Amino acid sequence: MRNINGIVPPMVTPLAGRDQLDLPGLERLIEHILAGGVHGLFILGSTGEAPSLSYNLRRELIKRTCRQVDGRVPVFVGITDTAFMESVSLAEYGASHGAAAVVIAPPYYFPAGQAELIDYFRAIASTVPLPVILYNMPACTKTPIDIETLRPLLDHPNVAAYKDSSGDMTYFHKVIRLLKDHPGKTVLIGPEEQLSEATLLGGNGGVSGGANLFPQLYVDIYEAAVRQDIQAVRHLHQRVMDVSTSLYSIGKHGSSTIKGIKCALSCMGLCNDDMAEPFHKFCDRERAIILERVEALNCLAVGGHN
Amino acid sequence: MRNINGIVPPMVTPLAGRDQLDLPGLERLIEHILAGGVHGLFILGSTGEAPSLSYNLRRELIKRTCRQVDGRVPVFVGITDTAFMESVSLAEYGASHGAAAVVIAPPYYFPAGQAELIDYFRAIASTVPLPVILYNMPACTKTPIDIETLRPLLDHPNVAAYKDSSGDMTYFHKVIRLLKDHPGKTVLIGPEEQLSEATLLGGNGGVSGGANLFPQLYVDIYEAAVRQDIQAVRHLHQRVMDVSTSLYSIGKHGSSTIKGIKCALSCMGLCNDDMAEPFHKFCDRERAIILERVEALNCLAVGGHN
Amino acid sequence: MRNINGIVPPMVTPLAGRDQLDLPGLERLIEHILAGGVHGLFILGSTGEAPSLSYNLRRELIKRTCRQVDGRVPVFVGITDTAFMESVSLAEYGASHGAAAVVIAPPYYFPAGQAELIDYFRAIASTVPLPVILYNMPACTKTPIDIETLRPLLDHPNVAAYKDSSGDMTYFHKVIRLLKDHPGKTVLIGPEEQLSEATLLGGNGGVSGGANLFPQLYVDIYEAAVRQDIQAVRHLHQRVMDVSTSLYSIGKHGSSTIKGIKCALSCMGLCNDDMAEPFHKFCDRERAIILERVEALNCLAVGGHN
Amino acid sequence: MRNINGIVPPMVTPLAGRDQLDLPGLERLIEHILAGGVHGLFILGSTGEAPSLSYNLRRELIKRTCRQVDGRVPVFVGITDTAFMESVSLAEYGASHGAAAVVIAPPYYFPAGQAELIDYFRAIASTVPLPVILYNMPACTKTPIDIETLRPLLDHPNVAAYKDSSGDMTYFHKVIRLLKDHPGKTVLIGPEEQLSEATLLGGNGGVSGGANLFPQLYVDIYEAAVRQDIQAVRHLHQRVMDVSTSLYSIGKHGSSTIKGIKCALSCMGLCNDDMAEPFHKFCDRERAIILERVEALNCLAVGGHN
Repeated sequence: MRNINGIVPPMVTPLAGRDQLDLPGLERLIEHILAGGVHGLFILGSTGEAPSLSYNLRRELIKRTCRQVDGRVPVFVGITDTAFMESVSLAEYGASHGAAAVVIAPPYYFPAGQAELIDYFRAIASTVPLPVILYNMPACTKTPIDIETLRPLLDHPNVAAYKDSSGDMTYFHKVIRLLKDHPGKTVLIGPEEQLSEATLLGGNGGVSGGANLFPQLYVDIYEAAVRQDIQAVRHLHQRVMDVSTSLYSIGKHGSSTIKGIKCALSCMGLCNDDMAEPFHKFCDRERAIILERVEALNCLAVGGHN
Repeated sequence: MRNINGIVPPMVTPLAGRDQLDLPGLERLIEHILAGGVHGLFILGSTGEAPSLSYNLRRELIKRTCRQVDGRVPVFVGITDTAFMESVSLAEYGASHGAAAVVIAPPYYFPAGQAELIDYFRAIASTVPLPVILYNMPACTKTPIDIETLRPLLDHPNVAAYKDSSGDMTYFHKVIRLLKDHPGKTVLIGPEEQLSEATLLGGNGGVSGGANLFPQLYVDIYEAAVRQDIQAVRHLHQRVMDVSTSLYSIGKHGSSTIKGIKCALSCMGLCNDDMAEPFHKFCDRERAIILERVEALNCLAVGGHN
Repeated sequence: MRNINGIVPPMVTPLAGRDQLDLPGLERLIEHILAGGVHGLFILGSTGEAPSLSYNLRRELIKRTCRQVDGRVPVFVGITDTAFMESVSLAEYGASHGAAAVVIAPPYYFPAGQAELIDYFRAIASTVPLPVILYNMPACTKTPIDIETLRPLLDHPNVAAYKDSSGDMTYFHKVIRLLKDHPGKTVLIGPEEQLSEATLLGGNGGVSGGANLFPQLYVDIYEAAVRQDIQAVRHLHQRVMDVSTSLYSIGKHGSSTIKGIKCALSCMGLCNDDMAEPFHKFCDRERAIILERVEALNCLAVGGHN
Repeated sequence: MRNINGIVPPMVTPLAGRDQLDLPGLERLIEHILAGGVHGLFILGSTGEAPSLSYNLRRELIKRTCRQVDGRVPVFVGITDTAFMESVSLAEYGASHGAAAVVIAPPYYFPAGQAELIDYFRAIASTVPLPVILYNMPACTKTPIDIETLRPLLDHPNVAAYKDSSGDMTYFHKVIRLLKDHPGKTVLIGPEEQLSEATLLGGNGGVSGGANLFPQLYVDIYEAAVRQDIQAVRHLHQRVMDVSTSLYSIGKHGSSTIKGIKCALSCMGLCNDDMAEPFHKFCDRERAIILERVEALNCLAVGGHN
């Protein structure tokens, strides 16, 4: 597989009630995202609410997404789980339907030790039939992947890339340093507010939730950063901060980003905003705010910004 | 169903390698625990490493345990999951095999809001075909069940009991107060080091991990506390602290209790000490310490203490 | 000095605006507390808002309190600080005014290592001219005192007692075990909701904030627990839970207990409820609730309960 | 006062045992830092171990530093404290000795509410006789300054700047947005590993601990970022990461950065590496590693890099 880099949106999972996909929404959303020129598509991540979905639904999503994308970009499938065999089983399903790689964070119920994490990820990487993107997401998994834990894992031939959603740029810069000794292996940043600096200073792209809404914006940042066009990056970074402060600041819980994205997608007519339990979708009052802000962002030309 | 009270050991899951039950160990362990006079058996809890087990294995464990227990005590089945439908599915499987109730903690990947938790647990309680024991386990789920969240949930007719593993006795005392308005509903304490006070001061029993090893010890504490025999409770409480400080203090991670119990069970010839990934079982050096301490505890007459 | 045990209220500091003591309130409060039969008086603890007070005010409080108590009970002075020399200086001031011992928690700005804590407390204990009560208060100091850190410190001849406000009864039971090897050294529990069990199961008393309000209630619990009168303890424990759930549950911050006590004292006519910055005292709406609840508690005979 | 921007090193406090300044070291260190072309000097911050120093020592340090700097750059004095009046008193002392501004983080013992923080900082800003730099340092103070808390504080005429040591670049970018409405008010970043991106994307400089050691390196980054020379910034950023991964990675506690800087300064012959209690200075083994790494950094031309 070629290097994993660029903008790889973590797709939300359009739902139509409990344990049902919003199928027309899913089709529209995939086409909307691909039209933005993204470099890959990541399904069943945190933004995709994967842990809240039944395995049947996850499988259906893999099958339908791979079929519709049909090789236009690589599809990456989240297999993070607390049960080793369920991760492997999802990976095999993904492989048989044409996924390009799997993404896996630490098991998230028990707090494993770092030595245990090393063995765990090695066993996963040696067992699954696809390249592996390791995923650092301590806010949800409780267990971070320490730098000294990542170091030996990068030697594994089946570990292809790293996704860091810690939000800690000092840590991210240390990952970039580690990767100098691993040509072809890459690191993507999670939080889109840090995409500009991550790519300017040596990172390889981002898994930007806002790219569900405005895919081209994030692709433009990535490309401006790759060509070291600092003026363009600064300008586009302001648009990302417009999106972030407008749409992700409603509600108090860690879920405000996912809910904001899904609600905005619904306001834009792309898909339903049903959330998987235990999350509530935004109420009418919150939705009215999002609607107004989506329109304001469009006036700022964020949506069709070029 | 009669009230849920007394000692309900959270059974470890005897394993023989990845995704395999240690079947002879499972049989021996069940008989060992029941011989101690316990009041119920809780499978697929945290001590049972449930989240680390494949769904196939969980189902096999439910079937085999219910068959072997065969009504001698009620069997409670853990259905905690991040995906609503998987919890329901396990509950239905448990019901069809004779389980008496299900146990469920908050979904543990995303941090839900308290209002979301109320709706989530109500939906579970209204959907599953067995009485529900709500389970507070913030160290693993990240999300605690606030007192004000528990209050309305106790009104649900299918919520039968509460298990609190927060370790916070102030919180536990507040739960006891709440239950005064809900006759027939009960609260069990998780940490065995707090079993004595919990039962002396109004709690209804415990889900004591050490009862895998020394079931009668915990039953004796419970019975002494019920008859308000403070001298006996104080004496037996010292034995519990002997177990806790001897066997649960090796290793640095939250897993030291489960690993200590499983290793001690292995030293006692009851079952294998294989751990489900990502956990490592104790190494030879750690096992030697456990072996020595198990023998010391037997000299203290903890094992067959009366 | 005789053993440190029994009920040692952590006295609030009555204030009359910024950097001013409420002198009449202070006098009334001291007499009110001593009239309850308490076994000591602890000033400049967390409940006393010590870290928020200027050193001049702390010295004035030491001088006035020691003078008024005049040997009727021992006075313990909090010297917790981030600067070693300031702790020593306060201890010397306390000694020269007749204090019986000092109380000290870990320095609370930087997170010290446990080995550093051992050396720090040894240096304090070897330098100050009064017996030392070590104080575990991780919610405020960030750094807990691990059991393995406490063990060697108990060997220091000038460490007289331990105060545990961790709220973790498992930890507290481990401290009780440690103290078996140190006759004459004692442990007091912080959270009053855990006073009953702490004293029933081997602890030596409590530093109960509610004893500012209802000192005799806590003395009665202590005495009932010492004589192992479980019925009386259970009854009185309910009264403590009445106080706790009535008065400490307003507001969202860790400060709700201190604010509740001070507001209730004001409602009872004992002293002002001014708080030291950065805390706000309760607003009129909150005060109205406290007033109503204080009256309800008096009807329950908590105030003059026997 | 002119705008606060550029590189403002948080000077370590050279010590010669308990409660004693290393006076020759202090003189050498000040000259070493100023020779690097820095834009200001910040004393009595976290890196300066201020909370661990007696008030006498803090005053002596203010007096000596201001006298020696003698107006060559502005001196900023940390006045963070848990007691309001002690902060004010230090600020007055600083003003009378020629300090240019004070720096203050939230009180760090009790967890204040955000509304309380607003009132607290307003009262400080209205009381002290110098411009105020607010300081966000949640790792040490426990209480963060929320964006919505900062917003009204920026309206206060005596709040001149903001220092953010949260390590969260998303938060930092939101602060930059807020400051657009407050011309002349600035934001400096704490962690030096994030200095490059902070200044490239709109921040105004950094309070970089490593500038005790290699002041010109950080000045060069700042100037390269101001002129938007991305190639130079990328190159110098690698040198900062060399410093960070070499010198700040020894030891497990949050103190590893301060200890590493002080030990390296000692290896460079600039000042003693004594730490204020409760910290231990590095032992011989750790010092040998630092010594070797300082030499390696000099070979990399970090020290005299241009």
